[in-house]
Amino acid sequence: MHYSEQKLTEEKVFKDPVHRYVHVRDQVIWDLIGTKEFQRLRRIKQLGTTFLTFHGAEHSRFNHSLGVYEIIRRIVDDVFHDRPKWNKEDRLLSLCAGLLHDLGHGPFSHSFEKVFDLDHEHFTQEIILGNTEVNAVLTKVHPDFPKRVAEVIGKTSANKIVISLISSQIDADRMDYLQRDAYFTGVSYGQFDMERILRVMRPHEDQVMIKQTGMHAVEDYIMSRYQMYWQVYFHPVTRSAEVILTKILHRVKELYQKGYRFKQEPAHFTAFFENTLTLEDYLKLDESILFYYFQVWQDEADEILSDLCLRFVNRNLFKYVEFDPAKEYKKLAELSALFEKAGINPDYYLVVDSSSDLPYDFYRPGEEEERLPIHLLMKSGEIRELSRESEIVDAISGKRRTDHKLYFPEDILKDDKTKKNIKKQIRTLLDMRS
Amino acid sequence: MHYSEQKLTEEKVFKDPVHRYVHVRDQVIWDLIGTKEFQRLRRIKQLGTTFLTFHGAEHSRFNHSLGVYEIIRRIVDDVFHDRPKWNKEDRLLSLCAGLLHDLGHGPFSHSFEKVFDLDHEHFTQEIILGNTEVNAVLTKVHPDFPKRVAEVIGKTSANKIVISLISSQIDADRMDYLQRDAYFTGVSYGQFDMERILRVMRPHEDQVMIKQTGMHAVEDYIMSRYQMYWQVYFHPVTRSAEVILTKILHRVKELYQKGYRFKQEPAHFTAFFENTLTLEDYLKLDESILFYYFQVWQDEADEILSDLCLRFVNRNLFKYVEFDPAKEYKKLAELSALFEKAGINPDYYLVVDSSSDLPYDFYRPGEEEERLPIHLLMKSGEIRELSRESEIVDAISGKRRTDHKLYFPEDILKDDKTKKNIKKQIRTLLDMRS
Amino acid sequence: MHYSEQKLTEEKVFKDPVHRYVHVRDQVIWDLIGTKEFQRLRRIKQLGTTFLTFHGAEHSRFNHSLGVYEIIRRIVDDVFHDRPKWNKEDRLLSLCAGLLHDLGHGPFSHSFEKVFDLDHEHFTQEIILGNTEVNAVLTKVHPDFPKRVAEVIGKTSANKIVISLISSQIDADRMDYLQRDAYFTGVSYGQFDMERILRVMRPHEDQVMIKQTGMHAVEDYIMSRYQMYWQVYFHPVTRSAEVILTKILHRVKELYQKGYRFKQEPAHFTAFFENTLTLEDYLKLDESILFYYFQVWQDEADEILSDLCLRFVNRNLFKYVEFDPAKEYKKLAELSALFEKAGINPDYYLVVDSSSDLPYDFYRPGEEEERLPIHLLMKSGEIRELSRESEIVDAISGKRRTDHKLYFPEDILKDDKTKKNIKKQIRTLLDMRS
Amino acid sequence: MHYSEQKLTEEKVFKDPVHRYVHVRDQVIWDLIGTKEFQRLRRIKQLGTTFLTFHGAEHSRFNHSLGVYEIIRRIVDDVFHDRPKWNKEDRLLSLCAGLLHDLGHGPFSHSFEKVFDLDHEHFTQEIILGNTEVNAVLTKVHPDFPKRVAEVIGKTSANKIVISLISSQIDADRMDYLQRDAYFTGVSYGQFDMERILRVMRPHEDQVMIKQTGMHAVEDYIMSRYQMYWQVYFHPVTRSAEVILTKILHRVKELYQKGYRFKQEPAHFTAFFENTLTLEDYLKLDESILFYYFQVWQDEADEILSDLCLRFVNRNLFKYVEFDPAKEYKKLAELSALFEKAGINPDYYLVVDSSSDLPYDFYRPGEEEERLPIHLLMKSGEIRELSRESEIVDAISGKRRTDHKLYFPEDILKDDKTKKNIKKQIRTLLDMRS
Repeated sequence: MHYSEQKLTEEKVFKDPVHRYVHVRDQVIWDLIGTKEFQRLRRIKQLGTTFLTFHGAEHSRFNHSLGVYEIIRRIVDDVFHDRPKWNKEDRLLSLCAGLLHDLGHGPFSHSFEKVFDLDHEHFTQEIILGNTEVNAVLTKVHPDFPKRVAEVIGKTSANKIVISLISSQIDADRMDYLQRDAYFTGVSYGQFDMERILRVMRPHEDQVMIKQTGMHAVEDYIMSRYQMYWQVYFHPVTRSAEVILTKILHRVKELYQKGYRFKQEPAHFTAFFENTLTLEDYLKLDESILFYYFQVWQDEADEILSDLCLRFVNRNLFKYVEFDPAKEYKKLAELSALFEKAGINPDYYLVVDSSSDLPYDFYRPGEEEERLPIHLLMKSGEIRELSRESEIVDAISGKRRTDHKLYFPEDILKDDKTKKNIKKQIRTLLDMRS
Repeated sequence: MHYSEQKLTEEKVFKDPVHRYVHVRDQVIWDLIGTKEFQRLRRIKQLGTTFLTFHGAEHSRFNHSLGVYEIIRRIVDDVFHDRPKWNKEDRLLSLCAGLLHDLGHGPFSHSFEKVFDLDHEHFTQEIILGNTEVNAVLTKVHPDFPKRVAEVIGKTSANKIVISLISSQIDADRMDYLQRDAYFTGVSYGQFDMERILRVMRPHEDQVMIKQTGMHAVEDYIMSRYQMYWQVYFHPVTRSAEVILTKILHRVKELYQKGYRFKQEPAHFTAFFENTLTLEDYLKLDESILFYYFQVWQDEADEILSDLCLRFVNRNLFKYVEFDPAKEYKKLAELSALFEKAGINPDYYLVVDSSSDLPYDFYRPGEEEERLPIHLLMKSGEIRELSRESEIVDAISGKRRTDHKLYFPEDILKDDKTKKNIKKQIRTLLDMRS
Repeated sequence: MHYSEQKLTEEKVFKDPVHRYVHVRDQVIWDLIGTKEFQRLRRIKQLGTTFLTFHGAEHSRFNHSLGVYEIIRRIVDDVFHDRPKWNKEDRLLSLCAGLLHDLGHGPFSHSFEKVFDLDHEHFTQEIILGNTEVNAVLTKVHPDFPKRVAEVIGKTSANKIVISLISSQIDADRMDYLQRDAYFTGVSYGQFDMERILRVMRPHEDQVMIKQTGMHAVEDYIMSRYQMYWQVYFHPVTRSAEVILTKILHRVKELYQKGYRFKQEPAHFTAFFENTLTLEDYLKLDESILFYYFQVWQDEADEILSDLCLRFVNRNLFKYVEFDPAKEYKKLAELSALFEKAGINPDYYLVVDSSSDLPYDFYRPGEEEERLPIHLLMKSGEIRELSRESEIVDAISGKRRTDHKLYFPEDILKDDKTKKNIKKQIRTLLDMRS
Repeated sequence: MHYSEQKLTEEKVFKDPVHRYVHVRDQVIWDLIGTKEFQRLRRIKQLGTTFLTFHGAEHSRFNHSLGVYEIIRRIVDDVFHDRPKWNKEDRLLSLCAGLLHDLGHGPFSHSFEKVFDLDHEHFTQEIILGNTEVNAVLTKVHPDFPKRVAEVIGKTSANKIVISLISSQIDADRMDYLQRDAYFTGVSYGQFDMERILRVMRPHEDQVMIKQTGMHAVEDYIMSRYQMYWQVYFHPVTRSAEVILTKILHRVKELYQKGYRFKQEPAHFTAFFENTLTLEDYLKLDESILFYYFQVWQDEADEILSDLCLRFVNRNLFKYVEFDPAKEYKKLAELSALFEKAGINPDYYLVVDSSSDLPYDFYRPGEEEERLPIHLLMKSGEIRELSRESEIVDAISGKRRTDHKLYFPEDILKDDKTKKNIKKQIRTLLDMRS
């Protein structure tokens, strides 16, 4: 039997707290899970710094990737299997793309990518197409198979149905992470009736559509997503930790570029600093490596680096106030000047952070990122865009919500041993209770 | 108001997936949670290598410690509060001891302690009594308070009631970890009706006792514990990872002692190797540090060290067979000799591992570890040891169960490129399908 | 000790699947639960005919009433207890009003009240104030106490805080039924984080308000309510059963008034038919009485009564189509005429049913029913109406949604043994597949 | 297509709180659910009088029957489907037998059957084989099919595999009711990992067996069953209600046989009293009919009947003490004499009730009821009886546990207005606090 068709003698199951069990029958999937590139995802947290706000959020991207795979497996094996518009040959492609869609994520990728101008989707492609164990497994299926999987993940594939399973406004990725992140944080918001949604998904033309009877379950899913964004993903304490993390990386990069002599050479970062990054360098990084450096850097002579690392590791975070950058830019300039005067570097200790989300959107051709809307298959056979049928979705559709906060170290500003008066001025401007 | 009585202006809550919320009202508790020694527990997994078997088990000891605190808080604030035999002054002592009981745990402490002959309980005492942030907070309560907390955790305190809240056959520690580990692994076995048990706990004489009406909930708890031990804690795959981890530490210690030249100096381990360990050295270690070294050691010249590190990091574990060391010691000697012949060092690649548990025990004076049995408060006022009332508990009481397995690297033994015939002999002895 | 202060020697608990345990410490509450008027609620389903759509929905109003009591108990004992604006003397009043708020409900009250022009709130008052066991218990607290409880339930009390605990857009009644009905039906929509909402409730001026930090939990609660209305409470199959039930009651009343001779005298209904209803008559009715009659009426000579009873008891319900009464009144007239021709009485077999809900509303003075909006207590101390802060709530606020359906017996219309052509015309008009 | 093969155009689903969804694809199953005999199960509670102890336990046998069907559907469609030892032609037989296995249950059957010497299994057979809607549906499958279904339920079928799916020590019936009763009562004991058990069930020789790897899930299931029996099914308060119910039926039968003139003729019972029972008479009975009579009998002249009915309907139950009939028969005689003296009929007011259960048993040939033990399929291919492999099961295997209680009306015995001294003597003997 050809490798792509090989089944394990005995089905393997992973006990999963969200989906109860993750079932693996295909030798290809089993082999992919065993690769070192996939195992590396165990060392990268799904929610980055969120564990400093919600202590349960310590789960890894490995966890989530298995979950996405399992959802897709249920869709293709239990729901799409015999549907006329479903091409059974897309089964393995869908499973592999689902399993591997986050493969290129690095540690705390949000901050990391910003500082080093990287893109995890690019690395996902590199890992799939490069000289890796993952590529070796996929190539055994067919020499073209790595490319096909990469195109699905990169959304350049002609196979729109499979793309929409993995990347759309209602895809296996979102359905897994909402439930999984809700489970591990312990919040109730991420719950929705996934089993119902799976049962009403239909491959139709270029997209997975939803039978009209499942509309309310989809509404509930969209509300879950909205709540998770504002209650969990954009939580201001999490963003505080991320602000510090970003500033650590900025500082160390700046120091390196200025020729600062580190007590211990930041060997794992050199390629990043010097723009000579190879895939091998990238794959060596994970959160344990970062935490190792954050701990050794606590003993560095540079006070800013040392202080920021101590803060991050010991969770001594920045405080925040609401801040409107459009209106309060003058105040920001004033604060910045006062920080300088007080001997507190505002580049590192006075930070505006903005979070923004669009809960659902219909199609807006030509916009920055064209979002595929969710379509309903009506009983009549007609196809209707979701927000035209659902009053609730219509009410929030296309409405971007943004939140701005200004972060700063409250403890330093309250320490009146030095620069007492300037600090008082700062506190007044920041509306801190003295 | 004295520090020990200070309440937060606004109660703080942690969202907890197991207990829904962890409530903190005491300034002392809030300050303890903020210390760097307590925050360090975020970087140590509750279940060590179990995440390689149950992917959900990525939760930290920080998580669990908050949970134990919360259970004790509910007992002392909601159940014991007004009971005549409860001394309200023991409240803060109980809360602190519960919160801090695992403070001295190091990374993968089971393996680590075995190799370096350490004891985490010893370090818990050291952290509480030494020059630490935790000690500073406790001393603010009262100069004697650190010692009192340490004595409760060390079970040398005269305050038996508080000891039994934290260390007995039905204590807050066990009640939290059974539920928490069940939650994160996703297995159903760890569930029992804790709310019911809490409601029937009574401070009585030298021990927390259980009202007769709660006996069935306690039976269920003991069965949960039994199942969790054999289904989760002693899972043979987890033990395989632990075997490898132990062998890595053995190897690196051996190499160091032999004067091997490491490409990168194992600075964090020197004090362990040279027996010059200070508390500061100990506290620097966490799982990220270990994982950092496991990754750099993959590139070491020593083949055994490099191979074992690759195995651990990429989850390429040893396989196992059932093994009875009492009967099969000759076979083990034979295997060992064959491994030598095949050029596979049996000290590192042929390992017997044994797990053993006593699900419940009544009092056996003079035994190695005297276990405090669970006592029931009968309606009649009489006190009865649990196994005399419960047929189910009686049936398993005092029955130690032990499991032995023999671990080895299947992949090497199946690789017939070298030493084909010897490996075949080994495989036959191990009853491996060739 | 005065009766109103008496505590049970040992707290009583009811195992409750929604709130885990319902705790009773007050002798007054215990005595109220034991009255025959309160026990009668066991024989009245919380969701009337819904069990014919969601088979799990067999739970009684007894169930729900205990749940409402428990929520109020948690609010007053755990949250409001020491708040400056909370009057501790309102505790027992709140508990009693919560426990008894649904006391006057009869069997399938929605249909029953429509046909006999009754109002369950009126009967709740009657039971509390009349010659009943409940009244005797309340009077022991204080001769005025029954009146005070009745005024809270009737919303005429001057005690607005207590009223808003029980009857407002976010009250203990709604919080219990949403969760309970979700639990028993098995749908996931009714879940929200009640524990969070309870923690942020504050007695403030004339109303219970919500701390700003709890806004998202309240949004989630409002969405839950919206979904429960459209997914469960207004389910078209449930309404079909209710249509039939209503028609049974209409028919039996009509027959009685026409002097029809029943095989078995409908003794329990006589007072309803003749408008001589006493409280005693009312209290004798429950669902078992109704089901008894529905079964004996199956053998009545009147074909309509017999047929409708057979349908209800054996769940042979009417089918439905979407129907717009404003636009399709001519079609309805036409159908009605055709039904007459076909020998099918349209008064009983062609029924328009409308359901309508307002998910949330701000204050509209002078409207039919003035709804107290939900107010947020901002950090700044300001008070803000919910829809001004929440975009999601604003989006659905004040938007009434109505659904109309036309019900008819598909089986009769498909039976072509008689009036074949007329029935075909009807089927065409109703757009039934022949 | 033949009727037995017909599928519904669109799969029907029932929302089920225990199994999430119950899926129906077969026309035969859909038709069976629609019969009036099956719908009748909606009017019979699954747990009889248990709702008077656990208020959530108001669910019907209809509920449970759908659940058993769904479990069998999952086994035969998802697990057994392609197994060599499974005969696909047994699929429909298994589904029908599972769905209908409780069809003959009457209202409060435990008490009812005792008083009238009936057996619900007999009526299940009668309904399947007699002139009923159920029989008509089954006959459409094949004229022999009703008989085949009846034989499976009656355990006389030659098809042992199908019998063991429905009636064995680990069958779909038990797996559903443990989980369902736990869900509705709210106790945690009934939970076990059914999904795991289903996955390891194998049709093997004459019995469904369990793969060795599932042993611990089975242990957990057996413990769940043990706990549910003693915590829920044999709860002394439930038994008190049942004692009263039984005595009501005894009294009314005795009165009828003595020629007592009822105010309202107990028409539904005549056939039971006179031993002229037809299937039609039997099917007319349900709990609403019983409750109707219990309410009208409250107004009967016979004081015992009236009192017992008032007690049952208003939940004014008997109290109880532990009682050992083997040792305390003299005391019972003495009490009985004193009751006579006090004018309290001991036949109705002094009742010994015994409950007894065997948690698990291995095979004991020739015993009253031969129980099929649970067999494990070992990896080696060997078959082992469960208690030989599981220490826990071995510990409780074959150990019958029995509980005896003596029930009496505490309120009458405490009422000292009459027979003061005799009542005092009774209270002393019963060890009641005066």
